[in-house]
Amino acid sequence: MAVYLDHAASTPLRPEARDAWLAASEVTGNASSVHGAGQAARRLLEDARERIAAVLGCDPIEVVLTSGGTESVNLALQGTWWARDPDRSAVVLPDGEHHATLDTVSWLASAQGAEVRPVPLDESAAIDVAAFDAALPGAALATALVANNEVGSVSDVAALAASAAAADVPLHLDAVGAIAHLSLDFAALRGPGAGRGGLVALSVAGHKVGAPVGTGALVVSRHARMGAVLHGGGQQRGLRSGTPDVAGAAALAVALELTAAERAAEAERLRALSDRLLIGVHDIAPEVRLLGAPDRRLPGHLHLLFPDALGETLLFLLDSAGVRVSTGSACQAGVAEPSHVVLALGRTDREARSVLRVTLGRTTTAADVDAFLAALPEAHRRAAASSARAGSRS
Amino acid sequence: MAVYLDHAASTPLRPEARDAWLAASEVTGNASSVHGAGQAARRLLEDARERIAAVLGCDPIEVVLTSGGTESVNLALQGTWWARDPDRSAVVLPDGEHHATLDTVSWLASAQGAEVRPVPLDESAAIDVAAFDAALPGAALATALVANNEVGSVSDVAALAASAAAADVPLHLDAVGAIAHLSLDFAALRGPGAGRGGLVALSVAGHKVGAPVGTGALVVSRHARMGAVLHGGGQQRGLRSGTPDVAGAAALAVALELTAAERAAEAERLRALSDRLLIGVHDIAPEVRLLGAPDRRLPGHLHLLFPDALGETLLFLLDSAGVRVSTGSACQAGVAEPSHVVLALGRTDREARSVLRVTLGRTTTAADVDAFLAALPEAHRRAAASSARAGSRS
Repeated sequence: MAVYLDHAASTPLRPEARDAWLAASEVTGNASSVHGAGQAARRLLEDARERIAAVLGCDPIEVVLTSGGTESVNLALQGTWWARDPDRSAVVLPDGEHHATLDTVSWLASAQGAEVRPVPLDESAAIDVAAFDAALPGAALATALVANNEVGSVSDVAALAASAAAADVPLHLDAVGAIAHLSLDFAALRGPGAGRGGLVALSVAGHKVGAPVGTGALVVSRHARMGAVLHGGGQQRGLRSGTPDVAGAAALAVALELTAAERAAEAERLRALSDRLLIGVHDIAPEVRLLGAPDRRLPGHLHLLFPDALGETLLFLLDSAGVRVSTGSACQAGVAEPSHVVLALGRTDREARSVLRVTLGRTTTAADVDAFLAALPEAHRRAAASSARAGSRS
Repeated sequence: MAVYLDHAASTPLRPEARDAWLAASEVTGNASSVHGAGQAARRLLEDARERIAAVLGCDPIEVVLTSGGTESVNLALQGTWWARDPDRSAVVLPDGEHHATLDTVSWLASAQGAEVRPVPLDESAAIDVAAFDAALPGAALATALVANNEVGSVSDVAALAASAAAADVPLHLDAVGAIAHLSLDFAALRGPGAGRGGLVALSVAGHKVGAPVGTGALVVSRHARMGAVLHGGGQQRGLRSGTPDVAGAAALAVALELTAAERAAEAERLRALSDRLLIGVHDIAPEVRLLGAPDRRLPGHLHLLFPDALGETLLFLLDSAGVRVSTGSACQAGVAEPSHVVLALGRTDREARSVLRVTLGRTTTAADVDAFLAALPEAHRRAAASSARAGSRS
């Protein structure tokens, strides 16, 4: 039985979410149809929307259901861009964002004339609040990861949201990786203002919290000005057309509710397990460095720099031993490249290829941690040897 | 037990598709991850892609998985637009297209400077091939419904594709409503040319063939030039980023295979049932007209014009009697408006509000047809009386 320590990439479907999906998928009917079957589907949909809103701290009408994190991020960024003041063209983009954000902003820059204002990360891989604040004036939009998806460092999103509100710049928070571990209240982060600036959108994805892949949501403030990305029948305030996925919404609601209910206890449990893993790693290889900062990391998230081995080789050898980990984001379509996040921390190209991301989750046990620690010495020895051979050849 | 005759809006989930979804959703792992769990997910994904390709007559690499019909249509139209020759700005848009197409083209026109070249429907609600051909020269792209989603008329898509190839204009075919009933071979429709014009994309949606809502695909020719709509990790040839929905893909593959295997027998069965329904309607109300043309309609599809009653009232009264039908597209978010398709046929505004769409599908039985016919006389009598009262007041 393989040991799965890549929960940041995808976490197992919760049985309760699966059951909710199954029950809702028995209801035939397009939730946009006006007849009884359509109404039954719509009731399920609106019930799910209310429950998702309760977890995320927003109004039900502010929940826009999407097909996942990438779509949510694209809608937030492109949608805000399409509705911007025509005399604003700057996008505030912290270093080390997820590729869904990077590539969307890149496209806005190359195809639509956006001007990118980069913001550095601090040494813990959290967003530099002062630099973020300084980049805001007159921007069309700003975006920020709540927690860096590779390093796991949590940024001070309350400060970022307050800055954006003060500067009257629309802010999107990417909570895709964070929402499994952090309680985020949209209304509280947004504050009482009715302006079009400040926090306007927050992204979540189902498969990071135990709902099916292909589900997700974007919270869109009722005060936001936002255009659509997917045009059509005008569902969901015209922001996201398409037949609503009622079964997916029901599953997402259950998964988010369970996540929220378990979050405090899980944080404590995962913190203990990951501390144990980290101590075990240092017993085996004292030279390994934890990137980020211990007091800023998501509770189940470890990003480890092995000075003498390539992450890719370690991943391969651990995988052969039945242990699944990552070198970083899984979302780069399997291409082994130096981590842009580690580079953004001022590390070398070589260091950016020497990282291993170990992420624990709901199904992780102490036995999984022990299995990782049992497999590491041999994998590390062989990876370091391979690296030394490559070094001596070059 | 309600009688469901709105299969064009959404058709019940097939048990085999549900089982495939369940089995695949047990596999944890992001299909973009390089470890064993990711590879297991990717094997399931690529197996599904191959099977979908076999049904649609394309190469597996040409299958881009999406979240459904609306996304597929948006990707085809926006994606082709983003990759167009900069000196081409016309979009060839037949009358009576689905709102996913109408609203996307509308946005391209209002926000991106596209020039719309309309193409009339013929009297059967099929696209006028000669007018389509005449509109093509120098266009950036063209689009066409395979079968009109309200009237059910099938257009001569082989002729449209040949015209587009001859004019070297990229063509998208919207097969969302048609694929349940018609065999479409992408490679055969496209022909042997390696140009960037001709058929380049074909849209399908899962919930029209018994796969889950939230699944779909766009076939994109390997020769197409297409940009992305959802940017990110670069999955699926860079055309559709985001963690692939493996379970959804597996379910879609099964549903399409079953659809293809049953199609010929189902067409015969549904044709007989819908003929029986039509004869029954004429026995009850001889003044009712079938829109479209009998030899062009999808086998389970009837679009009925009631000269003396409003479609909306008929729908409500039939619904009260436990019979679910539609006035047209379900995708207009429950807004009761005159059908733009019926208006495109040169009918009056009043006539465009006097239509009922009755669509049969896989689970439809003779008893369902009889139940509809049993409920119709009373519903029709009351709807006609209501209409007469409204008329005498005005």
